[in-house]
Amino acid sequence: MTMFTRRVLLLIFAAMTAGLAATHSVAQTDPLPSWNDGNAKSAIVEFVKRVTTEGGPDFVPIEERIATFDNDGTLWTEQPNYVQAMFVFDRIAAMAKERPEMKETQPFKAVLEADRATLAALGEQGLVELVTATHSGMSTADFEKTVRDWIATAQHPRFHRPYTALVYQPMLELLAHLRANGFKTFIVSGGGVEFMRPWAEKAYGIPPEQVIGSSGKTAFELNGDKPVINKLPTVEFIDDGPGKPVGINRFVGRRPIFAAGNSDGDLQMLQWTTLDAGPRFALIVHHTDAEREYAYDRHSAVGKLDKALDEAPRRGWLVVDMKNDWRTIYPRR
Amino acid sequence: MTMFTRRVLLLIFAAMTAGLAATHSVAQTDPLPSWNDGNAKSAIVEFVKRVTTEGGPDFVPIEERIATFDNDGTLWTEQPNYVQAMFVFDRIAAMAKERPEMKETQPFKAVLEADRATLAALGEQGLVELVTATHSGMSTADFEKTVRDWIATAQHPRFHRPYTALVYQPMLELLAHLRANGFKTFIVSGGGVEFMRPWAEKAYGIPPEQVIGSSGKTAFELNGDKPVINKLPTVEFIDDGPGKPVGINRFVGRRPIFAAGNSDGDLQMLQWTTLDAGPRFALIVHHTDAEREYAYDRHSAVGKLDKALDEAPRRGWLVVDMKNDWRTIYPRR
Repeated sequence: MTMFTRRVLLLIFAAMTAGLAATHSVAQTDPLPSWNDGNAKSAIVEFVKRVTTEGGPDFVPIEERIATFDNDGTLWTEQPNYVQAMFVFDRIAAMAKERPEMKETQPFKAVLEADRATLAALGEQGLVELVTATHSGMSTADFEKTVRDWIATAQHPRFHRPYTALVYQPMLELLAHLRANGFKTFIVSGGGVEFMRPWAEKAYGIPPEQVIGSSGKTAFELNGDKPVINKLPTVEFIDDGPGKPVGINRFVGRRPIFAAGNSDGDLQMLQWTTLDAGPRFALIVHHTDAEREYAYDRHSAVGKLDKALDEAPRRGWLVVDMKNDWRTIYPRR
Repeated sequence: MTMFTRRVLLLIFAAMTAGLAATHSVAQTDPLPSWNDGNAKSAIVEFVKRVTTEGGPDFVPIEERIATFDNDGTLWTEQPNYVQAMFVFDRIAAMAKERPEMKETQPFKAVLEADRATLAALGEQGLVELVTATHSGMSTADFEKTVRDWIATAQHPRFHRPYTALVYQPMLELLAHLRANGFKTFIVSGGGVEFMRPWAEKAYGIPPEQVIGSSGKTAFELNGDKPVINKLPTVEFIDDGPGKPVGINRFVGRRPIFAAGNSDGDLQMLQWTTLDAGPRFALIVHHTDAEREYAYDRHSAVGKLDKALDEAPRRGWLVVDMKNDWRTIYPRR
């Protein structure tokens, strides 16, 4: 190496890293290959470019690049029912094998008999009973194992694939594109935080500490030399609607500059994200593809997309038309 | 560049990066220069080496390297009173200028007159009143500004330096050493999360989303086109004692493998961190240095270090003797 001066080495090094950067940039020419060319795709790419252009008027320092994503219907399929509801039904069936008296007790009877009329008429109290029965009375570790076992085997009734195979490929690319540009990506879901964490890292590349969701109370206990955290039958926090900005404030402590949702449960998160100075971006996934996924505009069994859709044009929120904007829906088998 | 083949370039590149690594490693020979050589320092260095040695029996994947730190008395000075208590007193003095009736109303009167006897006799109700009066009734944004302004100017009564200058240099080095080895570092404090976040990133390199603390309820509100989150006068979560593992579970969703505390308020966090299979580490900062900081063994105005100190030898927790283990206490001016 003595034939090279330090300066020559540094020049070579600079040239090589420039070469590496160039290669990298070529590979990134289309960061969103599952998005069809059009307004949606270019709006996203353009926004990311603006906030990451150093010296530009809209540059955002890396630590402030916070992006929050709803989960059900935004990152994975939520029809014909929330995946967590499917989990509840399956758990109740499993529990009834050991506790046959559940077969004669509402609201469990309705679940076990798939009695849609009774289920549809269940008030909040009945739903809380179903969730409580399946989500409390065990340690967090035991619950996590139950979720892992279930998600590994359960299948979607129409697509006959595991639910984690029914995540949206275009959204996976969007998450990856944001992260490649210094964003920290969070899930902010009405779903249970302890239901999502066991599989979110593998499915989305989002670690447990970046998953925000609804939760029940828990309590720490030391049994001899074995510490456990027990799940109690009390709702602690509903991370939905106005709860989403509250959850973001509590867990992240910074205001996002990018948010994605698909229902009125995301309305306040989109408002909180966009209604402030500086570059901000919000998108709504509009389910318009009955053939490849589901089409369910403003009202469906799992919720409404009504106020948020009305507000979108006024606020400049991007409405993603799943049928036309997405080349692919799910990852290849 | 044509005089170099690609292979030669790659060799040069490899040699250079090896050189960089070597330089880096030399610079890292002593990652904890403010720790005196001895058992405490070597136990820490040894643990970090063990869990980061790929292929070794105690290797821990990077995503599971979670480290949690108490704040008051563990990362910065908590005597003669919690910094947040000083903030409360100063806020009440400021508020009383605009609301003179506070001068005649307890518990504010006692604060304004520095009436120690009355203050010491305040029950939980009185303390909650003081915290509520100073920590609610404004937006999170306004509270953050108040904290920023205060922390920038307030001074410690004995050391006459800003409180953020009274962070422990050895702990800053420990945080940096852990992060350099792939750990994600969290604060898990009984203090208010919104009191810590405005300055924790600058003081410790810990971003807001990695600060866990006690909190009050908040509510989202849209005023015209201006969304705000308001701080309500209701306690939501006390992140102390058994609340610490509960908070860690809720916010991080993984069990730490490293934890540091200095009081019985950290006992359950240390238990939760260490009482499981695999390599685990806990340390207790023992305040033994009346000259350079404070000496206050098992009982003091700000809390107890009693059960945790008794449990330390049995659990293998490192007790750091501030006077003997730390070469420096505070960062240089």
